[in-house]
Amino acid sequence: MELTHLDEKGSARMVDVGGKQNTQRQATAQAVVEMKAETLSLITSGGIPKGDVFSCARIAGIMAAKKTYELIPMCHPLPIDGINLELTAELPDKVRIIATVKCTYHTGVE
Amino acid sequence: MELTHLDEKGSARMVDVGGKQNTQRQATAQAVVEMKAETLSLITSGGIPKGDVFSCARIAGIMAAKKTYELIPMCHPLPIDGINLELTAELPDKVRIIATVKCTYHTGVE
Amino acid sequence: MELTHLDEKGSARMVDVGGKQNTQRQATAQAVVEMKAETLSLITSGGIPKGDVFSCARIAGIMAAKKTYELIPMCHPLPIDGINLELTAELPDKVRIIATVKCTYHTGVE
Amino acid sequence: MELTHLDEKGSARMVDVGGKQNTQRQATAQAVVEMKAETLSLITSGGIPKGDVFSCARIAGIMAAKKTYELIPMCHPLPIDGINLELTAELPDKVRIIATVKCTYHTGVE
Amino acid sequence: MELTHLDEKGSARMVDVGGKQNTQRQATAQAVVEMKAETLSLITSGGIPKGDVFSCARIAGIMAAKKTYELIPMCHPLPIDGINLELTAELPDKVRIIATVKCTYHTGVE
Amino acid sequence: MELTHLDEKGSARMVDVGGKQNTQRQATAQAVVEMKAETLSLITSGGIPKGDVFSCARIAGIMAAKKTYELIPMCHPLPIDGINLELTAELPDKVRIIATVKCTYHTGVE
Repeated sequence: MELTHLDEKGSARMVDVGGKQNTQRQATAQAVVEMKAETLSLITSGGIPKGDVFSCARIAGIMAAKKTYELIPMCHPLPIDGINLELTAELPDKVRIIATVKCTYHTGVE
Repeated sequence: MELTHLDEKGSARMVDVGGKQNTQRQATAQAVVEMKAETLSLITSGGIPKGDVFSCARIAGIMAAKKTYELIPMCHPLPIDGINLELTAELPDKVRIIATVKCTYHTGVE
Repeated sequence: MELTHLDEKGSARMVDVGGKQNTQRQATAQAVVEMKAETLSLITSGGIPKGDVFSCARIAGIMAAKKTYELIPMCHPLPIDGINLELTAELPDKVRIIATVKCTYHTGVE
Repeated sequence: MELTHLDEKGSARMVDVGGKQNTQRQATAQAVVEMKAETLSLITSGGIPKGDVFSCARIAGIMAAKKTYELIPMCHPLPIDGINLELTAELPDKVRIIATVKCTYHTGVE
Repeated sequence: MELTHLDEKGSARMVDVGGKQNTQRQATAQAVVEMKAETLSLITSGGIPKGDVFSCARIAGIMAAKKTYELIPMCHPLPIDGINLELTAELPDKVRIIATVKCTYHTGVE
Repeated sequence: MELTHLDEKGSARMVDVGGKQNTQRQATAQAVVEMKAETLSLITSGGIPKGDVFSCARIAGIMAAKKTYELIPMCHPLPIDGINLELTAELPDKVRIIATVKCTYHTGVE
């Protein structure tokens, strides 16, 4: 086993992917956010205007996915093909987030 | 008619363009900025060093065009081929800006 | 009258605001976006899940407001206090956007 | 209880903090990353130059902390005073990350 | 002597400046760029429209100065008060660039 | 000889590279940073934990290389294939930095 982001001296580098062929790849990640039941109730209940909380999270996630390559030091700039975020309230106190990112490139998003 | 940036539940997503072929596309947009005649006169008159006002606007526009994909939430990262901005003073009080952006990709700039 | 973003030679500079006192300022801008009546109808009608279109625009506007100083070359980095965007459908074919930005600093947002 | 990032109509806004006094605040967050024992062993063992893996994570975390306000839509731009990241290998297969961020401002980092 | 950006274990950190008073500071840096005499001649000669080359460099420098804190890992976000760039052609083959940045804060730009 | 980033009127533009073929290119740049011998001694000596100084510089350089296209106004967004930075202490008071960037595209990194 080998850590490809380190060269033979242990120094970080951005691995050269220049000679590789393009392939279409897809990655799915999942997270569960816990919160107070009261908060989730406010977000999802009909008595309160809810629209923007999940929308805001979904849009923020999509915009952040485009910036991932800026945040992870050795990550290549990636021409992302598509991003999808599903947020599901799991009562009483959890929100499940499933993010799927697609990319056709000579390195991938997995 | 259909809003492709929403999925069947009305949630925003970044549409998957992974299967599409590259095509060469071009978009031109145009704006007219109104200002006080006195301001435009300062910008264009020979009596005052004018160089940087239009240059600054042109360069800012080109740099901003490269950032469009960061600002428009569902916009794909785009490998822009070329950007051109024309600024024309229309005396006494208007500046016309014509921006042309070219891109060869499986989604476009229109 | 004087263009303060140019020095005496006409070169662009970021004006020195170091000696100024902090003041609380507020700016409101307004735009009207025209579109096909059919599009606006899709966005606002009850027959289609509408949530994300206006939310997305509102969130994008707030995030873009934070980036204004990166896009306008001579703009100072600004510690913004608050941002509010109102989007109102004006049937049949217009959306009115009113943006209000507040800032307490030695230069402002107007 | 109230979600302050929504106005009375349920629309997202960046809350106005203009009238508030500056206070010095500090936030600490903690995460535990699980990985294959083999990977952690490569990162920490003396037989392999290890320097850059933890350094890279620490530096990436500090740089990302400065960008948090760009990623979280309703977050104010924050003049961060200090950032500290501790990474501790918890053998055989976990890394604990403790991040502390300090800020003196009229809104905070908690 | 001490490297303050390292803690007692040699790990990078963003030094806590929270308790310090604001002071007004200024930094000036200077660089000399060498190029072919033919290139500098094209940039400065009257026979060719020259406006944008120096303007572009000046504006790029100002915009880059605002991004310095994003590029230098341990640099604090800085509320810059003013930026000035002077570009002077030193015939036959050099351009001297003098950059001055001002900042009033509890850490500085020197 | 011709400055291709200027059009026939001397205005800056981002040159259209849409019709060009992809080629694999590589650029190497080199810099020597001078510092006090005492500082370099602190960075490299065994008596002080040194790990993060060179790592930090290397990682910062890699992350900055990905942002080059944002800083240089007329630079195209570039899908960088690989980045490598070598830092070598040249005692008593210099550090040599050799940066190599690879890119397969219809414009290059040279």
